[in-house]
Amino acid sequence: MPGVGPKSAQRLALHILRATQEDVDRLAAAMHEVKEKVSFCRTCFNLAEGMLCPVCSDPGRDATVVCVVEEVKDLAALERTAEYKGQYHVLGGCISPLDGVGPEDLRVRELLERVGRDGVHEVILATSPTVEGEATAMYVSGLLRPLGMRVTRIASGLPVGGDLDYADEVTLGRALEGRREV
Amino acid sequence: MPGVGPKSAQRLALHILRATQEDVDRLAAAMHEVKEKVSFCRTCFNLAEGMLCPVCSDPGRDATVVCVVEEVKDLAALERTAEYKGQYHVLGGCISPLDGVGPEDLRVRELLERVGRDGVHEVILATSPTVEGEATAMYVSGLLRPLGMRVTRIASGLPVGGDLDYADEVTLGRALEGRREV
Repeated sequence: MPGVGPKSAQRLALHILRATQEDVDRLAAAMHEVKEKVSFCRTCFNLAEGMLCPVCSDPGRDATVVCVVEEVKDLAALERTAEYKGQYHVLGGCISPLDGVGPEDLRVRELLERVGRDGVHEVILATSPTVEGEATAMYVSGLLRPLGMRVTRIASGLPVGGDLDYADEVTLGRALEGRREV
Repeated sequence: MPGVGPKSAQRLALHILRATQEDVDRLAAAMHEVKEKVSFCRTCFNLAEGMLCPVCSDPGRDATVVCVVEEVKDLAALERTAEYKGQYHVLGGCISPLDGVGPEDLRVRELLERVGRDGVHEVILATSPTVEGEATAMYVSGLLRPLGMRVTRIASGLPVGGDLDYADEVTLGRALEGRREV
């Protein structure tokens, strides 16, 4: 399991041994249940109980704006802002040749099919501002632009509450470059 | 001295006692010299040996673009990016009522005189993206806009190399809001 090394594994195993039969049964049942009930949304590949995830099945969300993220955890982070009212598309990772992940391993085809079908006006590329995330954003934007929709990238710059003095050079350079009229 | 508590002070004092007479004389002389030779630039209030700082006396820098920063350390951070080719204006802090710092304690009047005199086309507000920094930027922009120049603010967003998942809600919200066409 990710993040569980030999010491943590031993601690967890000993905890299971010490726990009551009832608790262990409940944990096992919960694991069964999550595997049975939770799958991926047919539209955006978010987690879903049923065919569609809570975002895609909410009629209040704007289906003409799609925000492309790498993973479900990024979608959750954007949902916590409570500012975004569009829908999502989870790629399932980012292009990373060193890890053997190419465009064909991501849900890019599904994205192209979806935006062609659903009359999407804007695609927001919200992959991480890392080398791999930028490469993925560039690749996807290259495929989307010929389709005639607005393609945008989330802003890079200084984190709110941060100090200029502690920002790295590349981030400061981007913050300068991306300056906006007041 | 800032950042020197009782323990550090004792360590430094004992170091001075242990050092040779010559080393102590040199340190004292260096402190005298820095106080004598280094003052503030007449134009931008950066550190300067003489009337003008290295930036203001460099004919290769664009004098029609002025980047407003809080402190000299912020100017140094922006210089490290090696991307900015304009000049600076050091305010000497930011508006902070809780600390008793008002607009009259900053070099705002000097900024207004300067931009009126020197034919400045753009003022970039590069105060920190903190509450005080934002308030200062808003205050200064309110004074500058009637003068008819372009007033811009550095971008807030995700730091380069960062992870969406680890960004706070406000920063993520700003990154979304400040998205740009690819």
